Amino acid sequence: MLYQTENPHGGDLYGREGMLDFSSNINPLGTPEAVRRAAIESLAGLERYPDPFCRRLRAAIAVCEGVPEEWILCGSGAAELIYSFCAAARPDPSLELAPTFSEYALALAAADCRTIRYPLEREHDFTLAGDFLPALERSGARAVFLCNPNNPTGRLIPQALLEQTAELCHEKGVCLFVDECFLDLSDGWENGSLKHLLGSCPELMILKAFTKNYGMAGLRLGYCLCADGALLSEMSKAVQPWNVSVPAQAAGVAALEERGFLERARAVIFCERTWMTKAMRELGLWVCPSQANYLLFYAPFPLAEKTPAHGVLLRDCGNYPGLGKGWFRAAVKRREKNERLLAALSAAIREAH
Amino acid sequence: MLYQTENPHGGDLYGREGMLDFSSNINPLGTPEAVRRAAIESLAGLERYPDPFCRRLRAAIAVCEGVPEEWILCGSGAAELIYSFCAAARPDPSLELAPTFSEYALALAAADCRTIRYPLEREHDFTLAGDFLPALERSGARAVFLCNPNNPTGRLIPQALLEQTAELCHEKGVCLFVDECFLDLSDGWENGSLKHLLGSCPELMILKAFTKNYGMAGLRLGYCLCADGALLSEMSKAVQPWNVSVPAQAAGVAALEERGFLERARAVIFCERTWMTKAMRELGLWVCPSQANYLLFYAPFPLAEKTPAHGVLLRDCGNYPGLGKGWFRAAVKRREKNERLLAALSAAIREAH
Repeated sequence: MLYQTENPHGGDLYGREGMLDFSSNINPLGTPEAVRRAAIESLAGLERYPDPFCRRLRAAIAVCEGVPEEWILCGSGAAELIYSFCAAARPDPSLELAPTFSEYALALAAADCRTIRYPLEREHDFTLAGDFLPALERSGARAVFLCNPNNPTGRLIPQALLEQTAELCHEKGVCLFVDECFLDLSDGWENGSLKHLLGSCPELMILKAFTKNYGMAGLRLGYCLCADGALLSEMSKAVQPWNVSVPAQAAGVAALEERGFLERARAVIFCERTWMTKAMRELGLWVCPSQANYLLFYAPFPLAEKTPAHGVLLRDCGNYPGLGKGWFRAAVKRREKNERLLAALSAAIREAH
Repeated sequence: MLYQTENPHGGDLYGREGMLDFSSNINPLGTPEAVRRAAIESLAGLERYPDPFCRRLRAAIAVCEGVPEEWILCGSGAAELIYSFCAAARPDPSLELAPTFSEYALALAAADCRTIRYPLEREHDFTLAGDFLPALERSGARAVFLCNPNNPTGRLIPQALLEQTAELCHEKGVCLFVDECFLDLSDGWENGSLKHLLGSCPELMILKAFTKNYGMAGLRLGYCLCADGALLSEMSKAVQPWNVSVPAQAAGVAALEERGFLERARAVIFCERTWMTKAMRELGLWVCPSQANYLLFYAPFPLAEKTPAHGVLLRDCGNYPGLGKGWFRAAVKRREKNERLLAALSAAIREAH
């Protein structure tokens, strides 16, 4: 038996060298040079084990996020923390949105927990609405996963609804797992975080990644914020002690000194997103109004097999519960690359007709 | 509540810069230059996700180990694979030796599995003996963890006993987890592996690391070999898809081209180990006859607080079940450093009297 299966996510370019990758949602500016340099310099100490407590990195995150160091747990990518949360909390069943990032359900399954799905509606641009709260209460869920902005829709969760959800979760003792990995590159960058509630709501777990913000997907670095020290302790026991590598820790510290970088990235993203949305709609595609650095769209004609031939890799969203055949996601990049995407889409559409 | 606790392992030098670290058992020759270079060069693609299937690396391991690629699963350090094995197999209860590497029991506990311990005896230099087989059979264990050579004793498991154990495990359907992470730097490098039994014994799981052999502890890279594809599949589902970073994969491929490196390291280790053992015994220490690249010893006088003052960090083995106060482990390094260890031990012993 083979355990190797197709990677269900985007970003798997191996064996497809030379393709322009719109399937993973990395900062369009790439990696800050200082981050790459810090990672390289750290390799002088390659033979040393990493700091199992990420002391320097957690101190830097604490300053940057304005939370105590004790509320911070680092992981080998945000994805690892999803798995260690599920392994430690075993929240059976859990509620997630549909569509949403697929790793929550996979990590829940790995911890023998069931997933309940709350469907989002295309008619409302997949925006989460007020009837979510009674549905959450009825579901009997022990945890709820919210991705803000949601992946792959690019929609932010309305702030009032987010805060009401936190209140309800606190009242009912339900874990609220809010994935803010794309928040800093979205319209919610300034006011969209729930971190101001961490102190009053120990049920709240916020997930953040360096991957997307600082173009560090290859190094694996994420962290979570939570005031429940016992839960963080259980999560850290669910994984090996040296999970965050030496170069990832060094790169993370360097990245947090690059705050202007995110601002410059947002300027590119917000401008390009408007341009791309308009151009894609002119091609006859239904494009979800995105508030993030990626675009979900529907193509009412075969596209999946066409775009790779034009040198462009999209994220086929056919395997998302709540979506299906014809749905795709594309990252927002710089103009020159976006023009190549549009040209590829345009050519693929012509061929489809 | 704080989740941060003291690292129970060696190698945690953070905050102790400048100390000579004998607490972690890394190859005394450090990191091959080609490995460091490969890791650095890979950082040009920092913003890309790692290959989730480690295709190039697994192909290289397959050639090097002489096993099919389908039998290989890579992990973010061997330690991660211990956790994913326990999470996937949930072998409750499991049997381990005492003393042995502490992560098996911690990973078992994280998977809600109990640990049964088979005590090794100092009178027999902590060598595993024949009455282990009936004890294993009586124990009702669903898995047995054997570390070969054992850590921290440095003792190889007699080959005949290893093979009998594999036979018994196969007959009874018990998982046999053999940790060979230190084997290539031990007297068992040529004939000590059980990998020739993989094909006939799907219950056998062999663990290997790049950490120790190639001085790559900071990068996190290990792998396991097993003919049970369904189990490997479950293990890969227990962790995130991108667990092995870009530089770790690149460094691993480069390391496997450095076979002469291990031979040179063994020459240093075997020569220095003899010298150190003799010198330490002359200081009045009881030294376990090691077959590996580290030495377990007992000091019948206080030593724990003394050696750091002399700039040397030992692994205090007080927290190993089966050992206790007065037990220490030291890595075998190059002569100049070993002389500094001996001087520090000598000074600490003088002060203790």
